[in-house]
Amino acid sequence: MRKLNVALIGYKFMGKAHSYALMATPFFFKTGIEPVRKVLVGRHAGPLQQAAQDFGWEEWATDWREVVQRPDIDVVDIATPPSTHAEIAMAAAAAGKHIFCEKPFTVTVEEAERTLEAVQRAGVFHMLGFNYRRVPAIGLARQLIASGRLGQIYHFRAAYLQDWIMDPQFPRIWKLNRALAGSGPHHELNSHIVDLALYLVGKISRVIGMEETFIKQRPAEAEPDQLSTMLTAQASASKMVDVDVDDTTAFLARFADGAVGTFESTRFAAGRRNHNRIEVNGSKGSVYFDLEKMNLLEYYNVDDPADVPGFRTIQVNESCHPYIDHWWPPGHGIGYQNTFVNQFADFFQAIVRGTPPEPGFEVGLENQKVLEAVTRSIADERWVSVS
Amino acid sequence: MRKLNVALIGYKFMGKAHSYALMATPFFFKTGIEPVRKVLVGRHAGPLQQAAQDFGWEEWATDWREVVQRPDIDVVDIATPPSTHAEIAMAAAAAGKHIFCEKPFTVTVEEAERTLEAVQRAGVFHMLGFNYRRVPAIGLARQLIASGRLGQIYHFRAAYLQDWIMDPQFPRIWKLNRALAGSGPHHELNSHIVDLALYLVGKISRVIGMEETFIKQRPAEAEPDQLSTMLTAQASASKMVDVDVDDTTAFLARFADGAVGTFESTRFAAGRRNHNRIEVNGSKGSVYFDLEKMNLLEYYNVDDPADVPGFRTIQVNESCHPYIDHWWPPGHGIGYQNTFVNQFADFFQAIVRGTPPEPGFEVGLENQKVLEAVTRSIADERWVSVS
Amino acid sequence: MRKLNVALIGYKFMGKAHSYALMATPFFFKTGIEPVRKVLVGRHAGPLQQAAQDFGWEEWATDWREVVQRPDIDVVDIATPPSTHAEIAMAAAAAGKHIFCEKPFTVTVEEAERTLEAVQRAGVFHMLGFNYRRVPAIGLARQLIASGRLGQIYHFRAAYLQDWIMDPQFPRIWKLNRALAGSGPHHELNSHIVDLALYLVGKISRVIGMEETFIKQRPAEAEPDQLSTMLTAQASASKMVDVDVDDTTAFLARFADGAVGTFESTRFAAGRRNHNRIEVNGSKGSVYFDLEKMNLLEYYNVDDPADVPGFRTIQVNESCHPYIDHWWPPGHGIGYQNTFVNQFADFFQAIVRGTPPEPGFEVGLENQKVLEAVTRSIADERWVSVS
Amino acid sequence: MRKLNVALIGYKFMGKAHSYALMATPFFFKTGIEPVRKVLVGRHAGPLQQAAQDFGWEEWATDWREVVQRPDIDVVDIATPPSTHAEIAMAAAAAGKHIFCEKPFTVTVEEAERTLEAVQRAGVFHMLGFNYRRVPAIGLARQLIASGRLGQIYHFRAAYLQDWIMDPQFPRIWKLNRALAGSGPHHELNSHIVDLALYLVGKISRVIGMEETFIKQRPAEAEPDQLSTMLTAQASASKMVDVDVDDTTAFLARFADGAVGTFESTRFAAGRRNHNRIEVNGSKGSVYFDLEKMNLLEYYNVDDPADVPGFRTIQVNESCHPYIDHWWPPGHGIGYQNTFVNQFADFFQAIVRGTPPEPGFEVGLENQKVLEAVTRSIADERWVSVS
Repeated sequence: MRKLNVALIGYKFMGKAHSYALMATPFFFKTGIEPVRKVLVGRHAGPLQQAAQDFGWEEWATDWREVVQRPDIDVVDIATPPSTHAEIAMAAAAAGKHIFCEKPFTVTVEEAERTLEAVQRAGVFHMLGFNYRRVPAIGLARQLIASGRLGQIYHFRAAYLQDWIMDPQFPRIWKLNRALAGSGPHHELNSHIVDLALYLVGKISRVIGMEETFIKQRPAEAEPDQLSTMLTAQASASKMVDVDVDDTTAFLARFADGAVGTFESTRFAAGRRNHNRIEVNGSKGSVYFDLEKMNLLEYYNVDDPADVPGFRTIQVNESCHPYIDHWWPPGHGIGYQNTFVNQFADFFQAIVRGTPPEPGFEVGLENQKVLEAVTRSIADERWVSVS
Repeated sequence: MRKLNVALIGYKFMGKAHSYALMATPFFFKTGIEPVRKVLVGRHAGPLQQAAQDFGWEEWATDWREVVQRPDIDVVDIATPPSTHAEIAMAAAAAGKHIFCEKPFTVTVEEAERTLEAVQRAGVFHMLGFNYRRVPAIGLARQLIASGRLGQIYHFRAAYLQDWIMDPQFPRIWKLNRALAGSGPHHELNSHIVDLALYLVGKISRVIGMEETFIKQRPAEAEPDQLSTMLTAQASASKMVDVDVDDTTAFLARFADGAVGTFESTRFAAGRRNHNRIEVNGSKGSVYFDLEKMNLLEYYNVDDPADVPGFRTIQVNESCHPYIDHWWPPGHGIGYQNTFVNQFADFFQAIVRGTPPEPGFEVGLENQKVLEAVTRSIADERWVSVS
Repeated sequence: MRKLNVALIGYKFMGKAHSYALMATPFFFKTGIEPVRKVLVGRHAGPLQQAAQDFGWEEWATDWREVVQRPDIDVVDIATPPSTHAEIAMAAAAAGKHIFCEKPFTVTVEEAERTLEAVQRAGVFHMLGFNYRRVPAIGLARQLIASGRLGQIYHFRAAYLQDWIMDPQFPRIWKLNRALAGSGPHHELNSHIVDLALYLVGKISRVIGMEETFIKQRPAEAEPDQLSTMLTAQASASKMVDVDVDDTTAFLARFADGAVGTFESTRFAAGRRNHNRIEVNGSKGSVYFDLEKMNLLEYYNVDDPADVPGFRTIQVNESCHPYIDHWWPPGHGIGYQNTFVNQFADFFQAIVRGTPPEPGFEVGLENQKVLEAVTRSIADERWVSVS
Repeated sequence: MRKLNVALIGYKFMGKAHSYALMATPFFFKTGIEPVRKVLVGRHAGPLQQAAQDFGWEEWATDWREVVQRPDIDVVDIATPPSTHAEIAMAAAAAGKHIFCEKPFTVTVEEAERTLEAVQRAGVFHMLGFNYRRVPAIGLARQLIASGRLGQIYHFRAAYLQDWIMDPQFPRIWKLNRALAGSGPHHELNSHIVDLALYLVGKISRVIGMEETFIKQRPAEAEPDQLSTMLTAQASASKMVDVDVDDTTAFLARFADGAVGTFESTRFAAGRRNHNRIEVNGSKGSVYFDLEKMNLLEYYNVDDPADVPGFRTIQVNESCHPYIDHWWPPGHGIGYQNTFVNQFADFFQAIVRGTPPEPGFEVGLENQKVLEAVTRSIADERWVSVS
């Protein structure tokens, strides 16, 4: 059993999810690698120390630059706001560390290109946290498409709907700050569905988008540098600030292979907590997925007998389904957190085998190009090629 | 085109549904018969006259005995409370009329036997209004089972849930009066699901039941002889009366061919307006139906490939599905009322062809035997054979 | 009871639906008007005569120009391909007839303007067949929005998905012929969801679209002038022709009041027979509708208690719901055809009251402007204002 | 942090689930207790040793009697077949160990009584693994009922449907052996829904049941003493043996407080992998739960406004919902395995607080009484009181 010492930078929602997965992965997957929760890194000693203890880390540290240099660190796991990804990843690459990086990859294409170049030069393994690829139902959709069982793909249709900032009194936390987050749901949610589009259908060639900010001013945060979450955010009683990110971004797309796509993300769909629905229609069938029922995939086969056609609701918990042989018997569904376990298992497996993990930074760059082309198309009010 | 003069007895909910169907059937089905809405019969001249006009009847009359004797009447259509079915049907049979009779057939097995004997002696056509057989989704379920595509049947599971009398101030209308209705949901709703069990699976051999009356006294009706419906019932301000029917009846059953069944009906399932769900499990597959989504049938095939098993949601609106070639293109669902049109179309077709329509009074007798066996099993607290 | 003599032009799918509704409307709605199925008009005497008999028309005729002049005709009902609507409607208006016209209104904005001018000049009543407004669930959605119960509207999201021409051997019938149909699903399906957008949210100000034709050549029709339907179309064995309409059209939209919208229609979504899903998100709640479950409306209220939030599945069959008091008790759903009855009931009611029926040709013009702006935006690859 | 050394007896499906939970509980719940995976116990050294390594146990041992005596063991966790529970639990109690025991509690009421007496005499903590109580949606249902928001309960309706032994060639593993398992789905599945009935509604007073064994002979197991699971079972090529357990058991029940209940379990419902649906109807509302969508609870409130009544689909992932503040933000659902974490958290919390954990062996005894009364009612073909 080979031990890999991990330094995790970030200790909020994603920090917890990664910590959990680092603990649980060896239980479910015998990859030959045992990840060690070595150092948890953050800026504020108080909550950081508590998190390190809660999440089972051996040490904690406030200077990530120092940590990524430590010779005893093998993997740098980046779970910080997007604006910091490039800098941290390039430093880690320079230090020869393998890198696991949360999504979205970066804020700009330029950053993404430099970061990709850095890891390629350093020859380290790199992987992005597009964890929905690790939902077994999405894995099954991919298998059906890749094996030709959906035929030629005509349509990709995705809507990622949330509602957590609909209250105008919800403060402008870092996710609503362009400098830190890149944009609003465009970077946070569209990056997910763009990744699924790249995974399931392939390259996107041209886009045109639209965005809107419904609530243009919000209370400032009471303690702005704490990286608050939707559950912990506190509004300042007196200060209003401008919101400089989108509340929703939608776009039309053309894929290189002839399919057409529609994408939409919002934080203003009342009642949709984390509703990520994806539909792919091909000449031989269709699949439909909704994250709120993540153990299910709906599948339509045009070759069904004429009297019994219909979307099948597949419980993607059969032993033949992706990842499931590591989990539970048929019908015993898995949860959100398990996708992180599947993800780290794939990461470790790739390291053991010496093959690049997927999706690597190349895929992230492609994703950033799409996001940036959409942003440009909005500014210029015209179709923009992804190049 | 052969004209058949119809006398319809009853002019409330079922009277309206039958009148509609008599009008619409020739539009959708070219059976060779044109039903004529000749006489509408009821007890109260005022509302009856209004109904006759609203529903397009040539005449109205208050004495059904006289009407069933009229030489110009060909078909007697009985849409009155169950306690009156036997007497009217026997009189109609004696007068040589074809008979369409609403469900449940009768109140007692003895009545059912006498009535069946009467129509057999008279040689007239007779059919019962178990209209759910005419839902295309149920017709498809029947085809799948009858053709062996579900294999050996193991389970029949039905729950017919309503909630329209949950308010304790809802008055004791005729449907809550044993003398008129036979019983509560047992006669009204269990008769429906027993009919579907007989249609889909076959004979029931033994039963044991349980019943309960949750609200034991209710306000009397303000105008008790008006045959009020759930929408028109008026409670008397001062008078309370005992409820002598069940609010719910459930029973276990064994089928002659080895399957087991569970049946439950209630008027106390909050939120379930008219929720009739039926599931049949066989060695090769399953079907599931819910009346609240009456255009859909869920179907599971055990021979699905291992990676894509799942219940298919079939929209039973394909041109190959029962009745649908008379209606609309795929995806344009039909409604509750259309089942009555399908039903009368089958009735007329049978008359034209000279073959007995299904389900006839023989099936109704079988149904009554099951209902009565359940009632006896409740009284005696033991299993009772259906014989 | 005032009789209105109707001339119906067209006798295929819509001809049947209208004929049915003209028969059934007086049964369910006492508007004071009795429509008379006077003349059925078409081009081919053989099938026309059969249809006239099947659908209960007194006469049939092949020259619509002559018929619309007849003094005994009160209403001209147009159920022909879109390219003919303007000419027929203008002739009918000139003859002083009231007009019911199927959707989409016309092929071009220019036609729509001239036609609107004609009916306004003539002072006749005019109404368009956007029948989904008459689905009770849509009516309820409208009430919730109009009464402010959804608050400020942020999002309108619609996808109208079908799959009936996915087989490349399906012939190029008239609906795939730009000259006759205007376009593909853009005119046929997007016109429906644009109408619902106008009804539920309001004016659309700017659009940008995308279209694709996946199958660029198809067999010619064996008998091209018969106006074949998806069920009757016959392919020519030898002749291939170009398809000059879209197979799918999607567009982004901005509403005048600040909401954003996404629209998509296709005939290439395998398994989606007639799947028209509409979602509206506002500051106080959301509604979701899917035509394949047309008796249901999902509704989310942001004021739900914190522990029991969730979309409610409303069976829109309560007596307080739009149109339902004319139909059946709660839980007994209505079907596709009933929307036509509701529609003609509204048409007749408006005539009796002397108030313009909704949606009139003004609304149709607005709809055409949106469709045409989308088409222009596709040609020019830029945002286009609706004006 | 107080350490508790655990000995886990059993290392198959439940052994894995418990091992996982013992690892993960301290990560999510800060109870003050740190469980130590001390000894894993089984009969077959080979696979046991592998499991101990895979699941992170410090030691393994083949003699449970010896292990439960070890002074360094604090908790005995029993995950063996039901027939062994009583003996192991009594030995553990005699040794003064706290006991966590999988469900069903025992095979007979007599065993359950003796075991309960033993733990009460020893004064140790005891808890049963009815993990569905720990599904947040079930916890919410309980809160709604306990707080009176469903009013007086009228109906409890449960069906636990599986299909994993439908193939007649599936061998007779230990779960199909009465001596080891007690019975078929009656002990395995009905025990679950009886527990939920006790939890949600209360005591059951009378029952009458029905059972059936559809496949009366099956291949013997190739290696019968390995406690095979549905995934690992191997059929002997030559030897057929009688099946002496039920394939399905259904029963009717009356609750002490006046409600009525229907219960059904089967392993012969094609397509239902692990479909446990529960519905409770009360005078003020209803709840519906389906284990295949375990993050959702459907809730109906009779006080909904008249125009928007309907079952709400609640995603039971709000921070105010049971257990959820320990997991993820709203909309990020949990999985099957998390119920075991919630369960052990409650167990440890109770130990820390010194209050009896729920459900303890008293509840298990009540459950066994219901199961045994059903079995007697089947043998005697009459209603049996639970006493």
